[in-house]
Amino acid sequence: MGEEEAQVFEAHIAILNDPEFIGTIENEIDNDKVNSEQALSDVSNKFISIFEAMDDNEYMKGRAADVRDVCKRVLSHLLGVSLPTPSLIDKESIIVSHDLTPSDTAQLNKNYVKGFITDIGGRTSHSAIMSRTLEIPAVVGSEDATSKIKNGDTVIIDGINGMAIVNPNEDDVEKFQKAKRQFENRLKEWAKLKDAPSLSLNGEQFTIGANIGTPDDVKSVIDNGGEAVGLMRSEFLYMDSNELPTEDEQFEAYKKVVSGMNGKQVVIRTMDIGGDKHLPYLPLPEEMNPFLGYRAIRISLDRQEIFRTQLRALIRASEFGKLAIMFPMIATVDEFKQAKKIFEEEKSKLIEQMVPVGANIEVGMMMEIPAAAMIADKLAKYVDFFSIGTNDLIQYSFAADRGNERVSYLYQPYNPSLLRLIKNTIKYAHKEGKWVGMCGEMAGDQVAVPILMGMGLDEFSMSATSILQTRSLMRKLDTKKLSELANSALNAETNDDVIKLVKEFTQHNK
Amino acid sequence: MGEEEAQVFEAHIAILNDPEFIGTIENEIDNDKVNSEQALSDVSNKFISIFEAMDDNEYMKGRAADVRDVCKRVLSHLLGVSLPTPSLIDKESIIVSHDLTPSDTAQLNKNYVKGFITDIGGRTSHSAIMSRTLEIPAVVGSEDATSKIKNGDTVIIDGINGMAIVNPNEDDVEKFQKAKRQFENRLKEWAKLKDAPSLSLNGEQFTIGANIGTPDDVKSVIDNGGEAVGLMRSEFLYMDSNELPTEDEQFEAYKKVVSGMNGKQVVIRTMDIGGDKHLPYLPLPEEMNPFLGYRAIRISLDRQEIFRTQLRALIRASEFGKLAIMFPMIATVDEFKQAKKIFEEEKSKLIEQMVPVGANIEVGMMMEIPAAAMIADKLAKYVDFFSIGTNDLIQYSFAADRGNERVSYLYQPYNPSLLRLIKNTIKYAHKEGKWVGMCGEMAGDQVAVPILMGMGLDEFSMSATSILQTRSLMRKLDTKKLSELANSALNAETNDDVIKLVKEFTQHNK
Repeated sequence: MGEEEAQVFEAHIAILNDPEFIGTIENEIDNDKVNSEQALSDVSNKFISIFEAMDDNEYMKGRAADVRDVCKRVLSHLLGVSLPTPSLIDKESIIVSHDLTPSDTAQLNKNYVKGFITDIGGRTSHSAIMSRTLEIPAVVGSEDATSKIKNGDTVIIDGINGMAIVNPNEDDVEKFQKAKRQFENRLKEWAKLKDAPSLSLNGEQFTIGANIGTPDDVKSVIDNGGEAVGLMRSEFLYMDSNELPTEDEQFEAYKKVVSGMNGKQVVIRTMDIGGDKHLPYLPLPEEMNPFLGYRAIRISLDRQEIFRTQLRALIRASEFGKLAIMFPMIATVDEFKQAKKIFEEEKSKLIEQMVPVGANIEVGMMMEIPAAAMIADKLAKYVDFFSIGTNDLIQYSFAADRGNERVSYLYQPYNPSLLRLIKNTIKYAHKEGKWVGMCGEMAGDQVAVPILMGMGLDEFSMSATSILQTRSLMRKLDTKKLSELANSALNAETNDDVIKLVKEFTQHNK
Repeated sequence: MGEEEAQVFEAHIAILNDPEFIGTIENEIDNDKVNSEQALSDVSNKFISIFEAMDDNEYMKGRAADVRDVCKRVLSHLLGVSLPTPSLIDKESIIVSHDLTPSDTAQLNKNYVKGFITDIGGRTSHSAIMSRTLEIPAVVGSEDATSKIKNGDTVIIDGINGMAIVNPNEDDVEKFQKAKRQFENRLKEWAKLKDAPSLSLNGEQFTIGANIGTPDDVKSVIDNGGEAVGLMRSEFLYMDSNELPTEDEQFEAYKKVVSGMNGKQVVIRTMDIGGDKHLPYLPLPEEMNPFLGYRAIRISLDRQEIFRTQLRALIRASEFGKLAIMFPMIATVDEFKQAKKIFEEEKSKLIEQMVPVGANIEVGMMMEIPAAAMIADKLAKYVDFFSIGTNDLIQYSFAADRGNERVSYLYQPYNPSLLRLIKNTIKYAHKEGKWVGMCGEMAGDQVAVPILMGMGLDEFSMSATSILQTRSLMRKLDTKKLSELANSALNAETNDDVIKLVKEFTQHNK
């Protein structure tokens, strides 16, 4: 299920091995003569309330949930009561629950679990992420589903519109069964496009690539007809380790991806540590606003030994396919020039040492900081390409943390302000003969794609499972009409106005 | 010395009244038969190490410094040893110390303390702020001044260039005495401009205003020849209180400022709480990135009862002079329209209730979020004015927390990327016949002022003590040449390039 999920269980095991936890329970049994269930429950509650009192510490509050999860499981064994176990579900079901814990979701069997509804959670909650990964329809954050839905109720889940119908009438059942069949047919249609080119209706060529996190993801890119890896994150090398990865370890990983893609382009992003990603063996300063802090290229330029090791591994891997390198969080011309210079130095050294090196390694940058997008014309002279990182670009442009639910209304990918930054980037890159990709969530967003095509974006990089759907959409659209649509969008006032424009356009051009 | 300083001493008094602190000391005297000095020292150290261990909590770490300060002072009384007391300095001196605590700086006598040098500290440290407020030359963050300078040494402090010379030769003494006389003469020249208009050499009219934090600051604005209050922060009303300020309390404060300025314009900004400013009686959610979180207008639009109370107080105060209102942290057209609508509603209600209301209350917004600056053309249709808040605009544009020393190199006010956002704002505001002010630190920055004049900024709002110097600079500059300078700056590549352009320009036009 991935490293992050595994870590949750490591934490659970650590609790069960904690001598203070076990010792306190044993003491209570010895001294107070209570039974083990009582002692476990008392001691767990004590630990839980200590952790929960640490109001200002999200990490410690998370530990409270771990103790609660462990306590529940051990209690069920002590009491001989079986917990509802998702893995035991053996007929087609929809799960309705307050929340789904990591240990619950790890057990979901796609063959029987046809959907789930939770009371709490949001766009970035664990349950929402799992729904997308497992491709199980879900509605999260319903607030009161558990109090409104009873065991045995029939439920329709419309995951696309985030809606559920309880005990639907026959008309609804028929309507949604039809929608389901249509959706399945669409999936079949899409599958036929696996080896088709990504052309617009009027024959303009685009590239659809995938964002990947590890070399193992290459298979899914190929299976889904990906034409490139538009973003390979290199963080896994640093996060899945107890020390800095060696040059050789990195080289092997990069080589696997580059050669696995059989000559198709692979864009690898240098280390994007910091922000919300920390390494146990590389202590970073505590920061009041980590997203506005010491992270990504800022660390790389400061801790050059780490950066140079990564660059050498990348340059060595370039021999095995078509590799491009990009730097995250570039804000100024100086930063890019500095990073590029270090790249050139390492490349020269390797060539001097007779190490084989690919002929044309493109070197570009993520476009994810507003200041950089404002001087795209200047940066375009130095880069080989831009890759627009919309998640961060939106977060900084609107000054709104994308993980903070209180300001989630400011996640506005279609707002003309953001579209103008994107347009600026594409326009000036093209003026210098450079290409522009996009590797944020927006690149696979079906509302955004027509606008982005209209603005001339060259490469769309998304999760592998969105590739075929996007290719199918592209092939229905005429870029001559799209550039008018893009211009209207750039001149609109609000995010909602742009959504309306795209909807109207789609209706007119069906 | 202001509320923030006073709070430090409140904290000290609280420690001395803390029964656990005192009780533990008394217990140790009773039980361990140690003297009071020993007990105080032991217990203080225990508290200090507890606080310091709270690594992830800046606030608690600050408490360690408080305990240390209190312990030192009480110990000096118990031991009959007098601490070096800045207030007892009775001849001209320069203080060289590791750091200056709030209790030290509160006692500095400007008549004798001619400067200070500290080992630690930075642009935003307490000692640096005090240096500016008291207008005492200082070099902070020297790293090793205390080990290099001995009692009795002669020291020259050049606060403008952040440099000190220890035991200078006669040439240096002469050179710097001359520089000092020149500086004093300049101050005298500037003072003559108190009632002069803020004109460029070729007669173009600008407005120089001041940023203020409380009604008491109005005197200094008038004394320094301020033509407006370009920003009055309203936070003091919320911070200096144990509960939300009432409408009448707010009304009295706003009225005092508006009438104190005798018909000159006063721009009051609605509540900018959140980020790094918290209220004990208004619990806000813990956030991972508070600068990207729930703050300012985002709170006001969500907690409308607080916002409406403030707007009513402001509207009532408008009768007593020339009041303008602005909203902080506006990112989208929707937010401004919503805030403006609430303003209109409250104004109509007051008029219905026959409450006297000023004829023309201008309603504008802070321009401090990149997304807003990108759609200045759209926003300009709805606002009466923009006020560019460069501190936040820089922070968000470069994705760099301005309080974080690790990324302080990205505080680049002259970077063309930022200048373009400013230019965009001014250009489109003027197109709609609206005026543009600036209330960030940049408005009083002597390198930025020529560029801003060249871009057509209408109002410059700064700390009152910078007004006369800026007026003096303005009167030497020809805006026709400045617009060429501004165009070159907008087309430069880096922050340093722009500094060079301005320096060359100044040399050529002396």
